Amino acid sequence: MKAEIITVGTEILLGEIIDTSGPFVGKQLANLGIDVYYKDTVGDNFKRLDDAISLAEKRGDLIILTGGLGPTEDDITKQVLAKHLGLELVDDQVALTKINDFYAKSRTNRPGNELIMAQYVSGATVLPNDNGFAVGMFLKFNSKSYLVLPGPPSEMQPMFNKYGLPLLGKEIGQQSLIESRVLHFIGIGETNLEDQLKELISKQTNPTLATYVKQNEVTLRITANGKDQEEIKRLLDQEERQVQKIVGKYFYGYGEENSIEQVVVNLLKQNKLTITAAESLTSGMFQSKIGSVSGASEVFSGGFVTYAASTKEKLVAVAKETIQNSGVVSAATAAEMAAGALKALETDLAVSFTGVAGPSSLEGHPAGYFWIGMALPDGNVITQDFNFPKSRNDVRDYAVKMGFKMIYDYLENN
Amino acid sequence: MKAEIITVGTEILLGEIIDTSGPFVGKQLANLGIDVYYKDTVGDNFKRLDDAISLAEKRGDLIILTGGLGPTEDDITKQVLAKHLGLELVDDQVALTKINDFYAKSRTNRPGNELIMAQYVSGATVLPNDNGFAVGMFLKFNSKSYLVLPGPPSEMQPMFNKYGLPLLGKEIGQQSLIESRVLHFIGIGETNLEDQLKELISKQTNPTLATYVKQNEVTLRITANGKDQEEIKRLLDQEERQVQKIVGKYFYGYGEENSIEQVVVNLLKQNKLTITAAESLTSGMFQSKIGSVSGASEVFSGGFVTYAASTKEKLVAVAKETIQNSGVVSAATAAEMAAGALKALETDLAVSFTGVAGPSSLEGHPAGYFWIGMALPDGNVITQDFNFPKSRNDVRDYAVKMGFKMIYDYLENN
Repeated sequence: MKAEIITVGTEILLGEIIDTSGPFVGKQLANLGIDVYYKDTVGDNFKRLDDAISLAEKRGDLIILTGGLGPTEDDITKQVLAKHLGLELVDDQVALTKINDFYAKSRTNRPGNELIMAQYVSGATVLPNDNGFAVGMFLKFNSKSYLVLPGPPSEMQPMFNKYGLPLLGKEIGQQSLIESRVLHFIGIGETNLEDQLKELISKQTNPTLATYVKQNEVTLRITANGKDQEEIKRLLDQEERQVQKIVGKYFYGYGEENSIEQVVVNLLKQNKLTITAAESLTSGMFQSKIGSVSGASEVFSGGFVTYAASTKEKLVAVAKETIQNSGVVSAATAAEMAAGALKALETDLAVSFTGVAGPSSLEGHPAGYFWIGMALPDGNVITQDFNFPKSRNDVRDYAVKMGFKMIYDYLENN
Repeated sequence: MKAEIITVGTEILLGEIIDTSGPFVGKQLANLGIDVYYKDTVGDNFKRLDDAISLAEKRGDLIILTGGLGPTEDDITKQVLAKHLGLELVDDQVALTKINDFYAKSRTNRPGNELIMAQYVSGATVLPNDNGFAVGMFLKFNSKSYLVLPGPPSEMQPMFNKYGLPLLGKEIGQQSLIESRVLHFIGIGETNLEDQLKELISKQTNPTLATYVKQNEVTLRITANGKDQEEIKRLLDQEERQVQKIVGKYFYGYGEENSIEQVVVNLLKQNKLTITAAESLTSGMFQSKIGSVSGASEVFSGGFVTYAASTKEKLVAVAKETIQNSGVVSAATAAEMAAGALKALETDLAVSFTGVAGPSSLEGHPAGYFWIGMALPDGNVITQDFNFPKSRNDVRDYAVKMGFKMIYDYLENN
């Protein structure tokens, strides 16, 4: 099967937004063994999109359209496809109700056009949008297949994974099953990880290994195919064991939609441990990530942002002498910040961050140098320093991730 | 002039790398007033690239090819173009010398193929590569123009800016200048904004208006062309006045790379005011955004994450009775949180966030309902409630943005 991806949006042609949907879909199709020979971007123009669909029909069997499903006048993807195929647009009642309910509950008026996001091309299978309003669809017509997906990655990717992939799998008459296992790593770069797994990667056939990077972490996808779940599980287990033997110390969790903060909050819940933080370098980012996890209140009652030296003294009782003698970017200050936060809110664990976000250096330390402290239930405090000479917000993000990783390692080993 | 961008590379089709060259070139062409109607990605395949060039010649006048100029067997762009046009590849002596010199000086052996990076299509103007080996080129042939650029952004972007743009400017006989002004809005959706600007948008010719969305905010780009800077400025000013008259209350700042936290931190600096926060709903996200701005320490010494009711009492002195009588999601609690934080750290301003992140409801309030408090230098506290029934982290992000907007409005009007 040959596929062509058409991304719709003038803002992409103009370079105002970067298309990440095309690459995402391309990768997934490659995993399925579907060839993608062309990927096109077309502006929000009726005739040009219509032409692009015609051309894609000549060149391939599966046409994937992303973007242009919103409520504005620029959003024309469904309208063009319907006209192109000579089909009507009809309402999906579930999506319609969802949109109406939203505007009934919120205080903003619904501006006229929102309801068209519930429309789909007659005869298509509707793909629900769990993270937005615009429905997707899958349609077979005149021996061609059409998969239509929303533009925003936060809506498109879950829709594709949950509803699109199984449909495509059926479509290509997948005889053997294909399954992936996703592993997350923190504290190692992509090149380094690939280098360490070089031997496994070079001899890969089934399973295959593919790495990709999110901000300051690396994801490894192990994909196996087999005649049944059992065979696939055996293949994946076997491959994962070899991977873990080499880079296991950087591993923190499984699954496409996982994150280190989710893993750590869940581990804290399981261990019935509470946590707090005193953040200087990261200025609340660690606690914000804790709060992003639903149900975090079970393990987290609050904490401190201690940006200035005086605030470190005032809120978490760092001794003036410690700062004078060791500086704010030091093991001693990190330790007292963590211990002070733990004491102030009577938690089981506390973590602290102090360092140089940059761009300027501080106390003779270069931008990217920082200390993390972790106060433990037994009264001990562990400190560790890091050097990550990147941009200000990369340093802060990396520090938060390494903080979570230190807690993860502690919880896994105790 | 109509342009088409062709990005060459199987690794882009497979989603292994994200194409940033297309967006970069698209933006630059838009600024020049050259229309880009299509952008295609083609794998490293001779016939398919040849077909794509033929198609682009039918659809436009300027064909821009990026990628595939390297020394490996996959790199075929120049070879395909030369064959397509029936022209020879010839050596650029400057580039040839540069490659030979490099390998003479370095200790690594030159792997056979490197010299082809010095080749260009006979008759073309060579664009030197100041950051690599592969030369680019600009060619006019049979009434079409071809601009060929390397794939890596670090090589492509400087080459395009330094050598490509002047050639294109001459090509289109650039008479008039084009310039954009970017305006940012918070607290209004894209559809609603477009709806309110309907009349302006419908009659747009010069300047033109285009909206796009980032998470919970909307950007408006006003683009004007004129014979000189003065005329453009007059056109932009005039259009902006009309826009501001209608949606000015949602406006917070100018410029492609701007953000509400940057604007607010800068305004606080200008006004020599300090700020703190007590965050429940947002759990440190507001303070993290403050800390993301370089130089934030001038106006921010730290603050509180008061997630649990008990922490609100303990850290920022919210009265037990207030919580008992009004609940944590209330104007009264928001007010006491802000006032308590201001008092604790002796700042000029303090902001507080308390509400229901979801997915569950709280105290009878639905997910997405929240209060923001803002304590002022004169001792007053302003509170405002919001209802934003979206996902947990959308609610938190929206709350932080509305908090910044309240501070912005206060600073602009006082």
